Amino acid sequence: MMRRAIALAKRGRGRTSPNPMVGCVLVKRGRIVGEGFHKKFGGSHAEPQALAQAGTAARGATAYVNLEPCCYFGKTPACTKVLIAAGITRVVFGVRDPNPKVAGKGKAALRRAGIDVEEGMLAKKCESLNRGFFSWIRKGRPYVILKVAASLDGRIQTSSGESKWITSPQARALSRKMRAEVDAILVGRGTVIADDPRLTASGSRHPLRIVLDTNQNTPKTAKLLKQPGTSLIVSSKAPNGRLPATDSVEHLRVPKRGTRLDLKKALAAIAARGVTTLLVEGGSDVHTSFLEAGLVDEVRLFLAPSLLGGKTARSFFEGKGFDSLKSAPRLTETSIRRIGPDFLLTGRIA
Amino acid sequence: MMRRAIALAKRGRGRTSPNPMVGCVLVKRGRIVGEGFHKKFGGSHAEPQALAQAGTAARGATAYVNLEPCCYFGKTPACTKVLIAAGITRVVFGVRDPNPKVAGKGKAALRRAGIDVEEGMLAKKCESLNRGFFSWIRKGRPYVILKVAASLDGRIQTSSGESKWITSPQARALSRKMRAEVDAILVGRGTVIADDPRLTASGSRHPLRIVLDTNQNTPKTAKLLKQPGTSLIVSSKAPNGRLPATDSVEHLRVPKRGTRLDLKKALAAIAARGVTTLLVEGGSDVHTSFLEAGLVDEVRLFLAPSLLGGKTARSFFEGKGFDSLKSAPRLTETSIRRIGPDFLLTGRIA
Repeated sequence: MMRRAIALAKRGRGRTSPNPMVGCVLVKRGRIVGEGFHKKFGGSHAEPQALAQAGTAARGATAYVNLEPCCYFGKTPACTKVLIAAGITRVVFGVRDPNPKVAGKGKAALRRAGIDVEEGMLAKKCESLNRGFFSWIRKGRPYVILKVAASLDGRIQTSSGESKWITSPQARALSRKMRAEVDAILVGRGTVIADDPRLTASGSRHPLRIVLDTNQNTPKTAKLLKQPGTSLIVSSKAPNGRLPATDSVEHLRVPKRGTRLDLKKALAAIAARGVTTLLVEGGSDVHTSFLEAGLVDEVRLFLAPSLLGGKTARSFFEGKGFDSLKSAPRLTETSIRRIGPDFLLTGRIA
Repeated sequence: MMRRAIALAKRGRGRTSPNPMVGCVLVKRGRIVGEGFHKKFGGSHAEPQALAQAGTAARGATAYVNLEPCCYFGKTPACTKVLIAAGITRVVFGVRDPNPKVAGKGKAALRRAGIDVEEGMLAKKCESLNRGFFSWIRKGRPYVILKVAASLDGRIQTSSGESKWITSPQARALSRKMRAEVDAILVGRGTVIADDPRLTASGSRHPLRIVLDTNQNTPKTAKLLKQPGTSLIVSSKAPNGRLPATDSVEHLRVPKRGTRLDLKKALAAIAARGVTTLLVEGGSDVHTSFLEAGLVDEVRLFLAPSLLGGKTARSFFEGKGFDSLKSAPRLTETSIRRIGPDFLLTGRIA
C-alpha cells in the first residue's frame, strides 16, 4: 500500500515544488476505499482528496501516506484534523516531515486523538522520493544533480573545442527527460556561448533555466532566452540593460566570493524562488565549482565509448581538485546502465 | 562441440605463445571418442592428442577444432597428415590459420584427401580466442590491451600525486588475474619510479615484465626487477651498466622517434621474442603514446566511484589528443560490470 502511495505521489512530479510529492491510500478490510495525491503547489493535499473519494467509507480505515501528515493550517487545512474528523483509526506514514512546523507534531496530534500511528514504512524510498523537498527544508538549498556527458577519459570537448555531440541521441533524449523532473536547470555562461543550448525539457513543463553569468555577458541572442518558460540570469552586477527586456528573462544579483559568484548564496536565492531540485549541466568550471564547494548531492555521468585525450582538452572536473584520495568525493548507491552506445553511471554523494 | 573445443583450447592459455591455443574434439555417432589440446609451445598439437586418445575409434569420426589444422612439418608433424592417416572423414574448424604457411592450404590438403571440410563454425569466438596469435601473425606485433585504473573523471593521480589506491582490492586482484593471461606486461619508467610496482600475476606463471625506459633510468632497486621471471628494459641506448647484471634482467635497444622510443619498432622487437598479448598498464605518457599511435586493440578501464579533479592531476590520456570527435578512437563490443565498489568497462578498438 505504501508503494501505491509513492506511485500516486509521483504523479505530481514537477508541479508540487516547493511542496513535497504526497500520495495517500485509504484501506478498509483489505480494500482500497480512497486515493489521492498532491497535484500541484497550493492545491489540496493527498489526504483530503483520498477522504473525499472514500466518503463515509473512510470511517475505521487505515491511511497510508508517504510523508507525515501536516498539522498546521497553511494554504489548506491541517491534514491531521481532516483525518481525525473522518474517523480514520490507523495512519501509516513513510517518513517524518522535516518542516519544523510538523516534524513529529503531526504524529503526536494523531496519537492524541487516539489514532494508531506507524512511522517508517519504506522510509528510505519515501525520503528519496522527496529528496528535493528534504534538501530545501534542511539545507535551505535545492538538491543538486550534476549531469555530465563525457568521453571515457572524462573530456567534455576535444582539444580543438568540439563537443557536439560526444554522447548519442539516446543519451540526449534521456537527458531531456531528466530536465522534466527537476525544478530548474543550470549552466555557466561559457556553455551558453560555446554550445548555445535551448535547455528545453521533454513534456509540457518548462523548468526554470538558470545561467551563472558573473559579469553578465550572456548574449541577447542566446537560444535559451527564447524558449517557453522563464530564464534567470545570475550575476554579481545590477542588470546592465544588455539583457532582453521581456517577462520571461529575469535577473538575480548575488555577491562574489573571490573571482566567482558565491555559490552558496546563489543556491539560497534560487531556493527562495521555490526551486527544490536543480540539474547542473556544466560546463567544466561550473561542475568544478559545485564539486569543490561540496554542493553536489547526486551525479549522473553519461560516458560515450570514445577516448578523446589532450592535455588541454577540457575535462568535466578541473580546478585544484582534491589532493588526497581520502578527501575526494565518492559516489554511493551507484548504478550503471547502457543508453544506446553510451553508459549512464549514477550515484549519490553523502 | 566447437564450444567444447574452445574450452579445451583455453586450458593452454599462457603457455602456447607464440603458438595459438587449439582444442580438438573427435565425435563419432554423437559420442566424443577423443579430445586434446595444445598444452605448451613446442609440445604436440591438439589433433594428434585427440587421435591418440581415440585410437582406432577415430576411423570415420568428425574432428572439431577451433583453428584450421596445420599442413607443414614444424616442431611437430603436419596435423592434416595425421588426421588423414587416422581415417577422419569430416573436419569442422572455426577459423582459418592466418599463418601464410597454412592459410587455406590445410583445408585444401584435407579436401584433396577426400575429407569433408566445414569452415567458420563460431568463427568470431575462435578468432577472439587467439586474438594474440592473429595480431602476431598479421600485424607482426602483440595484441595490445590497455589497462587503466582511474577515477570517474579519468584521473590516475590526485593533484598532489597520490595514486595508491584509486581502485579497490577486488579490482587489483582481477588485474593480477589479467596479467596471468598475457605474455607480457608493460609500464613506463615513470610508473616504476612513482609506484614501484611488482607487476606480478596471480598463479604460477610469470609473464615478461617490460619497462619502457628511453634513457635507461630504471633504479636498480626497483621491485619488479627482483620478482620471479624475466624483466626487460627497453631503451634507446646500449646497456649503461646501471642495471643489475642478473639473468632475469634483459635489455632491448630500440631507436627513438622524436623524443620517445619508436613504439612500432619496440612492439616488433617484443613480438620477435614470442609475445603475442601485451597488457599495457601505464602511466599516462605510455597510455597516451599507445593511443595516439593507434596501437591499442582493447581497453580495460577500471573506474573507481570517486571524483578527484585538478587541472594538473594526471589523466590516463593526455598528450595532444584527438582534435575531432570523428577521428577519436571508439570502443566497440563494450561490456560493463561491477568489481566490488568499482566498475570495469571494456571494449575493443577496431
